[in-house]
Amino acid sequence: MRATVMYKAGDVRLENVPDARPIDSTDALITVAVACICGSDLWQYKLLPPNDTGRRMGHEAIGVVEAVGRDVQRLKVGDLVVMPFAYSDGTCDFCREGLQTSCIHGGYFGFGGPEGAQAEAVRVPQADGTLVVLPVRADSALMPSLLTLADVMCTGLHAALAAKIRPGKKACVVGDGAVGLCGVIAARRLGAEQIIILARHPDRIALATRFGATDVITERGEEAVERVRRLTGGAGVHSVLECVGTDQAMLTAMGVARPGATVGRVGAPHYESIPAAQPAFYRNISVSGGLAPVRAYIETLLPDILEGTIEPGRVFDQVIKLDGIAEGYRAMNDRQAIKVMVQP
Amino acid sequence: MRATVMYKAGDVRLENVPDARPIDSTDALITVAVACICGSDLWQYKLLPPNDTGRRMGHEAIGVVEAVGRDVQRLKVGDLVVMPFAYSDGTCDFCREGLQTSCIHGGYFGFGGPEGAQAEAVRVPQADGTLVVLPVRADSALMPSLLTLADVMCTGLHAALAAKIRPGKKACVVGDGAVGLCGVIAARRLGAEQIIILARHPDRIALATRFGATDVITERGEEAVERVRRLTGGAGVHSVLECVGTDQAMLTAMGVARPGATVGRVGAPHYESIPAAQPAFYRNISVSGGLAPVRAYIETLLPDILEGTIEPGRVFDQVIKLDGIAEGYRAMNDRQAIKVMVQP
Repeated sequence: MRATVMYKAGDVRLENVPDARPIDSTDALITVAVACICGSDLWQYKLLPPNDTGRRMGHEAIGVVEAVGRDVQRLKVGDLVVMPFAYSDGTCDFCREGLQTSCIHGGYFGFGGPEGAQAEAVRVPQADGTLVVLPVRADSALMPSLLTLADVMCTGLHAALAAKIRPGKKACVVGDGAVGLCGVIAARRLGAEQIIILARHPDRIALATRFGATDVITERGEEAVERVRRLTGGAGVHSVLECVGTDQAMLTAMGVARPGATVGRVGAPHYESIPAAQPAFYRNISVSGGLAPVRAYIETLLPDILEGTIEPGRVFDQVIKLDGIAEGYRAMNDRQAIKVMVQP
Repeated sequence: MRATVMYKAGDVRLENVPDARPIDSTDALITVAVACICGSDLWQYKLLPPNDTGRRMGHEAIGVVEAVGRDVQRLKVGDLVVMPFAYSDGTCDFCREGLQTSCIHGGYFGFGGPEGAQAEAVRVPQADGTLVVLPVRADSALMPSLLTLADVMCTGLHAALAAKIRPGKKACVVGDGAVGLCGVIAARRLGAEQIIILARHPDRIALATRFGATDVITERGEEAVERVRRLTGGAGVHSVLECVGTDQAMLTAMGVARPGATVGRVGAPHYESIPAAQPAFYRNISVSGGLAPVRAYIETLLPDILEGTIEPGRVFDQVIKLDGIAEGYRAMNDRQAIKVMVQP
């Protein structure tokens, strides 16, 4: 089958690889209906050192179940399923607490293991715990929004929940990528009254506004902090969604936080330590969040998507075929696309 | 009157200073019945650069109201009152949210301003918002425990609440000072099933056990992390109370935290940034807490002390007169005393 392999920063290729197939009795095999390129893939696209074997890429997909191992009970061949970026057994202590990213039998797709979703098919370990059946057909107009349940919409919700968004309160979203934009949807869904986003590109600003952002600011760093404080009567916001992952973004997130606020961070951290420990202490600012337990939120968000209440699929502004994967990475990396959908 | 003044690290003196008196219409003047030396005073005792004017010391007291300004309504002369380490108006947005340490008209005692509690009397700004009347006489046997409402017991509770202690769950207290020991009381009060404390001194271990610690470990650093993980079935604890304020203590706190756990930090931070940002992200560990809004917790804890349900006053293992203040600092700094009470 064909699958996406990255050999070093900037070098991503579509290659023929051995067909995916079930191995363990709890596996399913799915053929990919739609996949996508993630903002987190771009970190590797920028930084991956050269390697001979290549890294299999892609961790978000909707697919059709082609085969199941003998211990798989909840799924049958033909089911249309969404695959979150982490697999999990659904039964361990952490899974039952809604922290499937810490599942004791869990792992990740497309982080160097054999399973990557930017491909024609994927082996899904712990299939019963991992996959969620979608009550639509693969030609549904809702497919883009449903695909965001594999990562970005659930990650945006994780940021909003971690940041303790409360009805009638003020929020700030740092980051105008797909996760940040989904964070705006989540903040609005949880009732935030004021939602400020740091964004610069006109297409992202338009989408943020459509999703519910009340204020858009184009400043960065200290100027952004000053601007947010002015927009909030001087004190800052109650909830900050940090959706970038750089030291500078975290510093801005801490700066716009009101005393007593919470920063929900979901940007994969490319910083070693969390800045501003002292001012945050004296202002009682909490830092929460982390790698989103996407699986915990799929059933929560699914009805909203099916009813059309939220339309996170609008973050996909470019659709490519698998053989255009290298071009898709380039477009996202150059910020010509917000998020690229891949149709095998 | 006599008051404690620090001129540089290790140089603390009792001196004659101008009498405290009410200045603003919202002030009260209290004569100090009991005060104490705080672990945070020791940071200055270790590090304060030389200064000619001296710093007035002390921020915890119980006193008797001697005079009130014309706008003070809730207090009358003769009331016995507890004075938290921060003054606050009790009416601003932050006070109403229970974050009195961020009061827009607030400030601190004994941090270089004219008001310090290791003295014969103190001027209390924002007296109506700040002081809480105690329903006992100044010769009550409960005075030591009531005095902990000025800081350490409320700070221990802030750590426990920030760390989201839940009934039946596991907690770890990093730090065996008065705040850490009060953190044990708070963790037990909130229903933690297992309470592990890092402690070394026999007297502190005895007190921690009396207060409800289920496990005491004497290791530090990586060895402490390994030990806590073994004591908790491998994963670590749900709640960590960080009651020291060093980089090493924070690193240990992050290390003993179970995936999904919260670290409640109340040790005044002598670190610039919060360590272990990446492992904490992938394990969804939150960091909360900060300077404790002591005023928010006094009424909550007062009944427990009056009924004898909790006895935080046991942290006072040495009592001195004001003219022995230098010796009191030395004893606490040498860890010969857990916490020193001062009777003018």
